[in-house]
Amino acid sequence: MSLRDALSKIEAPDQGAAEQARARLNMLTKPLGSLGHLEEIVCRFAAIRHDGTAATGRSAMALFVADHGVADEGVSAYPKDVTVQMLRNISRGGAAICVLARHFAYELTTVDVGVEADTSDEKLPGILYRRIAPGTQNFLLGPAMTPSQADNALAIGIEVANAAASRGVTLIGIGDMGIGNSTSAAALLAALTGLPPDKIAGLGTGLDDAGWRRKVAVIEAGLSRHRGALNDGKSLLAAVGGFEIAAMAGVCLGAAAARVPMVVDGFIATAAAAVAEKLHPGISEHLFFAHRSAEGGHRLALEHLRARPILDLDMRLGEGTGAALAMATIQAALALFHEMATFAGAGVAERIR
Amino acid sequence: MSLRDALSKIEAPDQGAAEQARARLNMLTKPLGSLGHLEEIVCRFAAIRHDGTAATGRSAMALFVADHGVADEGVSAYPKDVTVQMLRNISRGGAAICVLARHFAYELTTVDVGVEADTSDEKLPGILYRRIAPGTQNFLLGPAMTPSQADNALAIGIEVANAAASRGVTLIGIGDMGIGNSTSAAALLAALTGLPPDKIAGLGTGLDDAGWRRKVAVIEAGLSRHRGALNDGKSLLAAVGGFEIAAMAGVCLGAAAARVPMVVDGFIATAAAAVAEKLHPGISEHLFFAHRSAEGGHRLALEHLRARPILDLDMRLGEGTGAALAMATIQAALALFHEMATFAGAGVAERIR
Repeated sequence: MSLRDALSKIEAPDQGAAEQARARLNMLTKPLGSLGHLEEIVCRFAAIRHDGTAATGRSAMALFVADHGVADEGVSAYPKDVTVQMLRNISRGGAAICVLARHFAYELTTVDVGVEADTSDEKLPGILYRRIAPGTQNFLLGPAMTPSQADNALAIGIEVANAAASRGVTLIGIGDMGIGNSTSAAALLAALTGLPPDKIAGLGTGLDDAGWRRKVAVIEAGLSRHRGALNDGKSLLAAVGGFEIAAMAGVCLGAAAARVPMVVDGFIATAAAAVAEKLHPGISEHLFFAHRSAEGGHRLALEHLRARPILDLDMRLGEGTGAALAMATIQAALALFHEMATFAGAGVAERIR
Repeated sequence: MSLRDALSKIEAPDQGAAEQARARLNMLTKPLGSLGHLEEIVCRFAAIRHDGTAATGRSAMALFVADHGVADEGVSAYPKDVTVQMLRNISRGGAAICVLARHFAYELTTVDVGVEADTSDEKLPGILYRRIAPGTQNFLLGPAMTPSQADNALAIGIEVANAAASRGVTLIGIGDMGIGNSTSAAALLAALTGLPPDKIAGLGTGLDDAGWRRKVAVIEAGLSRHRGALNDGKSLLAAVGGFEIAAMAGVCLGAAAARVPMVVDGFIATAAAAVAEKLHPGISEHLFFAHRSAEGGHRLALEHLRARPILDLDMRLGEGTGAALAMATIQAALALFHEMATFAGAGVAERIR
C-alpha cells in the first residue's frame, strides 16, 4: 500500500465504539471509574479498532534499525559500529527488547532499513532485510535522504503494519536502534514543535556536557541548512530524518489505516509519530504513547502532541522497551474489561449514595 | 511467628547485594543507567533478598477482606453487604484482582479476617478463613478492636508472609477489600503523618461532596476520641484500624523478616505500610510501592514514607490491583537483568566518549 492509499484509508476513531466499551466498564464490579487510566486505554482501543467489544488478537513489536550519517559529527557516546553489533545481538536474542518480547510473548519483527554494514548475505535469523541504503547521509552536508528514499522508508513501515494486521495483530509496538538517531529525532522534533534544539536534545546514549553542546550545535546547523524544507512533513523527513524514523512514521499511518492500535515507544519513536502527525493531522488519536522518557525534551514533545504517556519510569533505552512494558499494561486493561464480573452477574449491590 | 519474633528477625537490606546487581546491570548491552527506575527496582530487590544474583521464584498476591464498624456512619458510597458480596465474587474469580492474578499467573490467597457475614460454613473456594470478629467496632463509639485482636490480625499477616516464603515466593503483593476501609486508612494516615483529615481522606468508592464532608468529620471525631492512643503503633491500630489493614501491616513485617520483597498497593495498603513503619522504623526500605492512587492524599502519604511509586495510572480500586500491575513491571525488570547479553558476551563496543 502506498502512502497515498494509507492516508486515504484512515478514518477517525469511532467514538460510538468507545461509548459502548465505557458502558460495559460501568457495569463491572468496581467503583465507577476506579480503574482510572486503564479505562481510558480500553475506550481508546475500542475506538481505534471501531469495535465496542474491544476484541483482542496477537500483540507484536516492530523494531527498525538503521545508521545515520550525522553520527560522523561525534554526536553519540558510542561508535557507529554499535548499530550492526546490536543488530547481531538482537538476532541472537540478547538485546533488551528481545528479552521483553519473550517475557510478554509478543511477536518481534526486526527490520534492517539501512544499517551501514550489510549482513543480508548472512541472513541473520529474525531480521527482515529492507535496506534502503547503508545509512543516511550526514545532514550537515546535504539532505539525509532523497525524496524517493523517504517514500520507500514510509512504505516499508506501512507494509509492516499491513502484514501485522493481516496475521491478526491487534496491538503493535514500535521501536528503534541506530547510533546517532537521537540527533535526527531531536532535529525533527525541534522543527515540528518550534522549540529550540537545546530544549529538545538530550544526552542520547550518554553524552558528556561537551558532547551535548556539539550535538545541539549540529542540530542548529542542520536546521539552518535545511530551513526551506522544514514546513513540509516529507521534505523535513528527507532533510534531517532517519530510515528507521521514517519507517516508524509509516507504521503509524499504516496501523491507523488498518485500525490496529499502535504503541509509540520513547523519544525517537515520538519523533516518528510527530512526523506522521504532520503528514496526517489527528493521527495521534490512533496511537498510544508508552512512556515519558528521560531523554531530553520528550516531555515537551508529548505535550506538543497532547499525548498522555502510560508509564513514567525514567527509561531511555529505546528499542521499543517502553512500548513493550506499556503494551503489557494495555493487555491487562483489556483482560479486566473482558473477564471481570458485572454487578448484576455477581449479585453485588450498586452504590447507595 | 509472633510479632516480637518477626521484628527481631528483620535485618536492613543488604547494600552489598544491591552493588553486585548494579555491577551486572552496567555490563548489559544498553547505555549506562538507561533502564532508569527498572534498574533501581532490580537493586532494591537484590538488597531485600540479600542476594546479588536477584534470583526469582514464584509471585503471589495476598488479599485481606474485612468489615468496618465505622461504615455505620454512612462513610461509603456502597452498602456494607458489598464486602461479603465481593468475597463471593472473589471466590468465583470475577473481581478485578482475580483477573489480574490469572493474567499474570500470580498465586492468589484471599483471607477473610473479619467479614460481618460468616461464610466459613460454606467453605468458599479460594478463601482462607482467619476470622477475628464479624467486623471491627465503630471507632466513634470505642476502639475498633481490642489489643489482642490487633495482635491476632498482625500475626495472621506474618503467617501469610511466612507461608509464602516457605513455598518459594520471592515477590508478594498485598491488597484489601472492605466497605468503610478508606475511612479507617485515612484516620491512620492522618495520625501517622500529622496531616489534617481533609488533606488525606478521599472519595473512597465514590462519595459525593456531602458524604466526603461526613467522612472527614467522622475521622476528626475518631481521632479526637482516641487522642491518647495515637502515638503508639499498636494502640493506634486498635483504636481506628481495620483487621485487613492490621493483617497487611503484618505481611509487611513478616515479608521483611523472611527477605521477601513486598509490593504495597494503594491508599489502604499504604496505611498498613505506614503502621508497619511506625512499629519498625525503616521497614519501608523492604517494600515496593506499586502506584500513586487517585484516592485522597495518597501522594502525601507516599511522600511521608519517602516512597517512589512505580506506576501512576489514576487507579483507586484497591484489591491489590495496582500491586498486581507493578509486580509485572518488577518481573520484567528482573527478566531484563537475568536474560540480557553483556557487552563482552555479545561483542558490542562500549562507549567512546
